[in-house]
Amino acid sequence: MIRADHAHIASALVAVPADFAFGRLADSTFVGGWPLGSMGPKTPLLRLPKDVAINTPRLVIHKISGYDRDGPWWAWNWLELGEHFGTHFDAQLHWLTGKDFADGYIDTLDVQRLTAPVNVNDCSVEAAADPDFLLTADGVKAWEEIHVAINPGESVVMRTDWDKRIHDEELFPNEDPDPHNDDFHTPGLSTDCFDYLLSRGIVGWGTQCVGTDAGMAAEFSPPFPEHNFLHRDNCFGLASLCNLDQLPPKGAIQIVPPLKIVQGTGSPLRVLALVHG
Amino acid sequence: MIRADHAHIASALVAVPADFAFGRLADSTFVGGWPLGSMGPKTPLLRLPKDVAINTPRLVIHKISGYDRDGPWWAWNWLELGEHFGTHFDAQLHWLTGKDFADGYIDTLDVQRLTAPVNVNDCSVEAAADPDFLLTADGVKAWEEIHVAINPGESVVMRTDWDKRIHDEELFPNEDPDPHNDDFHTPGLSTDCFDYLLSRGIVGWGTQCVGTDAGMAAEFSPPFPEHNFLHRDNCFGLASLCNLDQLPPKGAIQIVPPLKIVQGTGSPLRVLALVHG
Repeated sequence: MIRADHAHIASALVAVPADFAFGRLADSTFVGGWPLGSMGPKTPLLRLPKDVAINTPRLVIHKISGYDRDGPWWAWNWLELGEHFGTHFDAQLHWLTGKDFADGYIDTLDVQRLTAPVNVNDCSVEAAADPDFLLTADGVKAWEEIHVAINPGESVVMRTDWDKRIHDEELFPNEDPDPHNDDFHTPGLSTDCFDYLLSRGIVGWGTQCVGTDAGMAAEFSPPFPEHNFLHRDNCFGLASLCNLDQLPPKGAIQIVPPLKIVQGTGSPLRVLALVHG
Repeated sequence: MIRADHAHIASALVAVPADFAFGRLADSTFVGGWPLGSMGPKTPLLRLPKDVAINTPRLVIHKISGYDRDGPWWAWNWLELGEHFGTHFDAQLHWLTGKDFADGYIDTLDVQRLTAPVNVNDCSVEAAADPDFLLTADGVKAWEEIHVAINPGESVVMRTDWDKRIHDEELFPNEDPDPHNDDFHTPGLSTDCFDYLLSRGIVGWGTQCVGTDAGMAAEFSPPFPEHNFLHRDNCFGLASLCNLDQLPPKGAIQIVPPLKIVQGTGSPLRVLALVHG
């Protein structure tokens, strides 16, 4: 069942303790921002300058029937849904640097990569003090000194508690208040941090912000290094993760199952984590 | 973490062996029917008579950008996607009988229900011989004699290998060849079988056919007993499951995470199963 074409993938399952106990399930999917804590029509979107690109649309829910003439005993809807909306999975081909991997689509990626031990870098204090905070390679190494080394086949996510802002369409993307300034102020990783994490053989990386790059990453060199490097190295990204404050720094198992849609570049998904009881 | 308002839910985690080994991951999501085995524009749909109801639409994939003027470094799409398309999850309020459960929406259901030990009733030989085959309560009891009793908090799925037909828009729904006959010939459960399974305290039930009811269920009494009874009893349904032939009769853990969309009646999802190594 385990494919051998990516050494760090093959080791993913080896790294999961065989005696892992099913204590409870944590739900890291998008909460807040809408009644009942779900993805909805008011869920904040990534913002792209109109002169640079077309943005992903808002979620629109179309009723088909509701126990009525259009369906006497049942209710159902259809959706206008962006692949990169809400809590979502970035597949490799989402970025130019990852477009040539045969297993880089949401329907072709190795299913064994969809579970992995997850390392949670808690940067919530730093992000609260400085929304432009960038975690560096040295910061990750210091985390490894306290906890355990990040192993090949594992995932890393950055906890910033940014999900606490998700109820607010301004607070979440955190655009600069100066109308002449296009900057966004949300935390992320420094370029050297990606180099380091990728050298550890991670399967993917995740954030609690609207996209995987830091808010200021358009000005980095290269621009948007997270997308550029992560997908270049055949890894996936996770954005708008929630409830990471429910996870231990080490020891949980993440479950990240994108929809299996033909040649998809990504998809909204329900992210779960198995946590020791 | 475990809510107490549904006794059979609370016991779901108890029933999972604490020493469960992460051997491998099986992918029970829709395969076949499209290049690379994914959900796509040609995925077969449920068919509803036009004079009775409006049907869910086909999947439509709209390109936003592909490393071009509309998005220089990235590719992404948006989707027209039915909540009950492809491999999908039926929440309780999908049916009139389940509409009043506060936890009956895909965004309000208890996350602890999204994993459960899964019992696989193998009816592949019977379904191959008779596409109208119905598994009865006695059939399930006989299965329990051979394997182990179905416990409260567990899930049950019916293996018919119907996924082997999913490449073909006619073979999958299997409509009667007589143009004057509206019947569909796909296997399912008898009414008494649902009574029995629900008495066992299952969390949900799943099938490999296009919908959870048997093809002839419009003529049963009551009509569509699976939807009627399952959702009445605050359980969920799973349709168009694939690769159930990869699962043991007993011992796997299913993972069924619907998208967390506000007040959703269901959603396409990637179904996974953890299987002993």
